[in-house]
Amino acid sequence: MAPAATSASASEPTRLDRPDPLDLPEGDPFGAHNLPYGVFSYADQGPRVGVRFGDHVLDAGAAATALGSPYAGLLARPTLNPLLAAGRTAWSDVRRALTAWLTVPAHRETVRPHLHPLASVTLHLPFEVADYVDFYASENHASNLGRLFRPDEEPLKPNWKHLPVGYHGRAGTVVVSGTDVVRPSGQRKAPSDPAPVFGPSVRLDIETEVGYVVGVPSAQGTPVPLADYRDHVFGLCLLNDWSARDIQNWETVPLGPHLGKSFATSISAWITPLDALDAARTAPPERTVPLLPYLDDTASTDDPAGYDLHITVSLNGHIISEPPFSGMYWTGAQMLAHMTVNGASLRTGDLYGSGTISGTEDNERGSLIEITWNGRDLLDLPTGKRGFLEDGDVVTMTAWAPGPDGTRVALGEVTGRIVGAV
Amino acid sequence: MAPAATSASASEPTRLDRPDPLDLPEGDPFGAHNLPYGVFSYADQGPRVGVRFGDHVLDAGAAATALGSPYAGLLARPTLNPLLAAGRTAWSDVRRALTAWLTVPAHRETVRPHLHPLASVTLHLPFEVADYVDFYASENHASNLGRLFRPDEEPLKPNWKHLPVGYHGRAGTVVVSGTDVVRPSGQRKAPSDPAPVFGPSVRLDIETEVGYVVGVPSAQGTPVPLADYRDHVFGLCLLNDWSARDIQNWETVPLGPHLGKSFATSISAWITPLDALDAARTAPPERTVPLLPYLDDTASTDDPAGYDLHITVSLNGHIISEPPFSGMYWTGAQMLAHMTVNGASLRTGDLYGSGTISGTEDNERGSLIEITWNGRDLLDLPTGKRGFLEDGDVVTMTAWAPGPDGTRVALGEVTGRIVGAV
Repeated sequence: MAPAATSASASEPTRLDRPDPLDLPEGDPFGAHNLPYGVFSYADQGPRVGVRFGDHVLDAGAAATALGSPYAGLLARPTLNPLLAAGRTAWSDVRRALTAWLTVPAHRETVRPHLHPLASVTLHLPFEVADYVDFYASENHASNLGRLFRPDEEPLKPNWKHLPVGYHGRAGTVVVSGTDVVRPSGQRKAPSDPAPVFGPSVRLDIETEVGYVVGVPSAQGTPVPLADYRDHVFGLCLLNDWSARDIQNWETVPLGPHLGKSFATSISAWITPLDALDAARTAPPERTVPLLPYLDDTASTDDPAGYDLHITVSLNGHIISEPPFSGMYWTGAQMLAHMTVNGASLRTGDLYGSGTISGTEDNERGSLIEITWNGRDLLDLPTGKRGFLEDGDVVTMTAWAPGPDGTRVALGEVTGRIVGAV
Repeated sequence: MAPAATSASASEPTRLDRPDPLDLPEGDPFGAHNLPYGVFSYADQGPRVGVRFGDHVLDAGAAATALGSPYAGLLARPTLNPLLAAGRTAWSDVRRALTAWLTVPAHRETVRPHLHPLASVTLHLPFEVADYVDFYASENHASNLGRLFRPDEEPLKPNWKHLPVGYHGRAGTVVVSGTDVVRPSGQRKAPSDPAPVFGPSVRLDIETEVGYVVGVPSAQGTPVPLADYRDHVFGLCLLNDWSARDIQNWETVPLGPHLGKSFATSISAWITPLDALDAARTAPPERTVPLLPYLDDTASTDDPAGYDLHITVSLNGHIISEPPFSGMYWTGAQMLAHMTVNGASLRTGDLYGSGTISGTEDNERGSLIEITWNGRDLLDLPTGKRGFLEDGDVVTMTAWAPGPDGTRVALGEVTGRIVGAV
């Protein structure tokens, strides 16, 4: 599996007769109102922090150095971790500086040489993942899975509306968008099988999620309250929690998912700072049971922690779902408060996922097990019928959010191709 | 919570009229046949790799430098990670060198200044934990919990004898022995409660485990076969997987344990290299169902992966259990093969736990929930009756294994004190 991936759409390097990369088309969703962070390399230059601007990447450390900025120390780095750790004030200050570098005419000549066409760079995992926790925060998704697997019971378990259910995943197998995903092998056992069999997963699935990237750590023994969410969380990414349903189904009792998930989790190469998503903030749905005080966000309705993200999931280039993030029952602030209420500490680089995002409609389901209702209703694509993923399939998730003044803020895509089992 | 802990038993610094620290009493279980690795600091000197020798710690990097050893580069470090990553040949070479430094008379004058009394140093977490996976490999433990929680079903779930069940825990809250553990708060709900309540855990428990420390990484997409276990695993430690049973019980469906475990996991300050445990290797129990080839170790009976560790668990100084590790159904080699069979990669510093070790006898159970049969049969200690842990309780686990020529190899203790909830 490749450790990094070159952007899929090749194009020639910028020539003099091309538009100035500092002059973006109106409404570009990667404009100065967005400025997501990643890590890239180009030519023979090693990994470095980049900021996406249109179809280019700003070598942020090189620009900072050229401009004599005090932020060169945070930006001229091979990973986002130092910036993540720097905290909310630094995040705002750096963002303000970047905005100036990319928009103030006096900086153009200095900055322009540090913009590289996206197609000419290699994108890397943007930060060192510390712990990875995956939640289960969509009521529609949890209900769908309950109906599929426990048809004789209430779709939701009794705890579901009292706490954001979650579990730890494998941090070491989080990969950047574009990385091929090897089909996992493992044990599976159909009810009719007398004993488990071993082989490549035959029920390989996706989970469409949003990931939250933690910047500022917290001390062990000290919970992080709801109100401190934005002091700790730096930004969002898209996340595909690849899932081998057959492996998962056999292993999962009584301690939860393990090998069915741990082979790979893909995240977008770009981390969108929360500061870019202010216009997308939205109130979560009304909660139907009272919440314990540490999760009760009804007093903060002027500071909502939901996000109005519009997600599109494509399989081999064909749209198969458009899950809305605005309907998630639990917010990222609640997940963070819950994850730390027992005193668990946070570290820079902690990543937590929302869990599969599913809306109320048939075309808003975030996993193939829901879309095909456990393989019963096959997807009919030009590339063939699909229950679960076949080798060679490419899954791509994109998203946009409302930005300031009617703009759109695009999140970085997360894409991955399935390659055959070893 | 303190990031590090000074050894509990205070004593004065070595004086000239004391025995030479290089002359250990006969049969010292921390003699030259043992040589576990840790990280320590002393006086105003920062963390550094140490090797335990009797009641002293050798500053391994300083000794290597003084002796002009080529291993100074691996040993003059603030963490064991570089040594862990160096691989099996380097592990053997360094161990051989250390043995010579501590036993060959010609080295005595050079080495002696670099031995520090254990009581005068601070011990630190010896390596940076990458991913932490906790298994469930004791048939007696899994059966006991099945009987307690699912009295109307078979004690073991159908998958249990086909694969080592495990799940990911929180790497960021692994702490070194001696670190206080803050009682976690969280949601719990007794069957009679109409809704969950929030507060400090009232069913705080221990889990007596052995931890496996991974040194050499593996590539994503490539399983690690049973036979390669010793190329990847550096050594063992003792591990206490503190567990809040009330929090765990309410949260655990359907995705497994989370907050009930993630507040703290304690490991011993000393990592015992597998090379020190050769005489302790023992065959695992006969398996009662056939294993799939990737887990089948019957062909390697001359290379057994079980360990004959004799563990003692004390609560406030009173022995409450003596679980035998030799009876574990699954070996560390099988756990490693299973954990990677889906292509999940290993990283230097990965830690995996055996799961609670329980023997067949009443006095061999590795958790309070088993010892007290879910609080029914209280422990009657001089410090009071105990169902679960009270604030101020100190739990200490020690272990020894057969060494060469009738010696004993002691593992480093893992101890921790419960302090009241925030």
